[in-house]
Amino acid sequence: MDRETMIERVKAEMPERRWRHTEGVMSTAMQLAERYGEDPARAELAAILHDVAKFWPVDRQAKVIRDNRLQLDVLEYDKELWHASVGAWVAEHDYGVSDAEVLDAIRYHTSGRRGMTKLEKIVWLADYIEPGRDFPGVDAVRALSQEHLEKAMIAAFDGTIGFLIAKGKRIYPLTIEARNGLIEEIGGN
Amino acid sequence: MDRETMIERVKAEMPERRWRHTEGVMSTAMQLAERYGEDPARAELAAILHDVAKFWPVDRQAKVIRDNRLQLDVLEYDKELWHASVGAWVAEHDYGVSDAEVLDAIRYHTSGRRGMTKLEKIVWLADYIEPGRDFPGVDAVRALSQEHLEKAMIAAFDGTIGFLIAKGKRIYPLTIEARNGLIEEIGGN
Repeated sequence: MDRETMIERVKAEMPERRWRHTEGVMSTAMQLAERYGEDPARAELAAILHDVAKFWPVDRQAKVIRDNRLQLDVLEYDKELWHASVGAWVAEHDYGVSDAEVLDAIRYHTSGRRGMTKLEKIVWLADYIEPGRDFPGVDAVRALSQEHLEKAMIAAFDGTIGFLIAKGKRIYPLTIEARNGLIEEIGGN
Repeated sequence: MDRETMIERVKAEMPERRWRHTEGVMSTAMQLAERYGEDPARAELAAILHDVAKFWPVDRQAKVIRDNRLQLDVLEYDKELWHASVGAWVAEHDYGVSDAEVLDAIRYHTSGRRGMTKLEKIVWLADYIEPGRDFPGVDAVRALSQEHLEKAMIAAFDGTIGFLIAKGKRIYPLTIEARNGLIEEIGGN
């Protein structure tokens, strides 16, 4: 599928506001890819599709997860996590994406996981810092994102975990594994 | 082994300061057991032994974990976690404790885990709030401990996780599972 057709189809899946967020993730992911030596075209492709299932009814999301035996444990956690697994499935089956790393970058763009590839890291971080994002601490992560990919992500995970704690919400185990793995990568413990 | 012999032997395994902490955990665990309908004698037994291996050289702790194939993954995390697994093993093999729930209360008194028994919760919380503890937030958890066992533990886990985040340290996955499980128990998500 050519880029313009894909963009038109993805755009039709979400409200205008969310498409603007997607454009922010596209440009940020491409910039981070240039900076950290990843292919900007793959970063953009993952960014275009990362939220493709975000506005599907949750029942439809759950059905895709159950019917295809995607990450089933995600169904026991916050619905905000579901669209990432579903998005990767849709990217592969409805948009013909076959690049496994692009699919993983979509799949783990919300939770993260231990041992993320550079492409996964870039899409995850771009989603957190794209220009439309406005929450406490985002500017510090933006600044750090130009200095050190993993340190910026740790700061972002710290913010996410702190937010969940303040809200009294559970924390998806993969998110903790992701942060633990990044701390190991920078030599911490 | 009678109670007094056990106390003398455990006392000899640690500095005076840590024995005073153990006494604090004993009295707090017994008070919480009375309050929440658990057997105070079992709570005291677990409390007496909970830190029995805390002052062993870490090499000796690691050897017990490896040789007996205890929670091996703990060896990849902070050494502060090791003494709990080792303590449960020592309680069983050197002190003749056969009550599996008492052993689990020792084993999980630092990390916690999903689906803790009432006895495990009591010992875990007593270790956090005993009168010798003095750190930000402990008084709030102490107050809550008289109202609601699980809510007090969630507040305590929140404090522990916040502390680890502030220090840039990894978080042991079982700790997150423990907090997630407690949130489920009180009907949260």
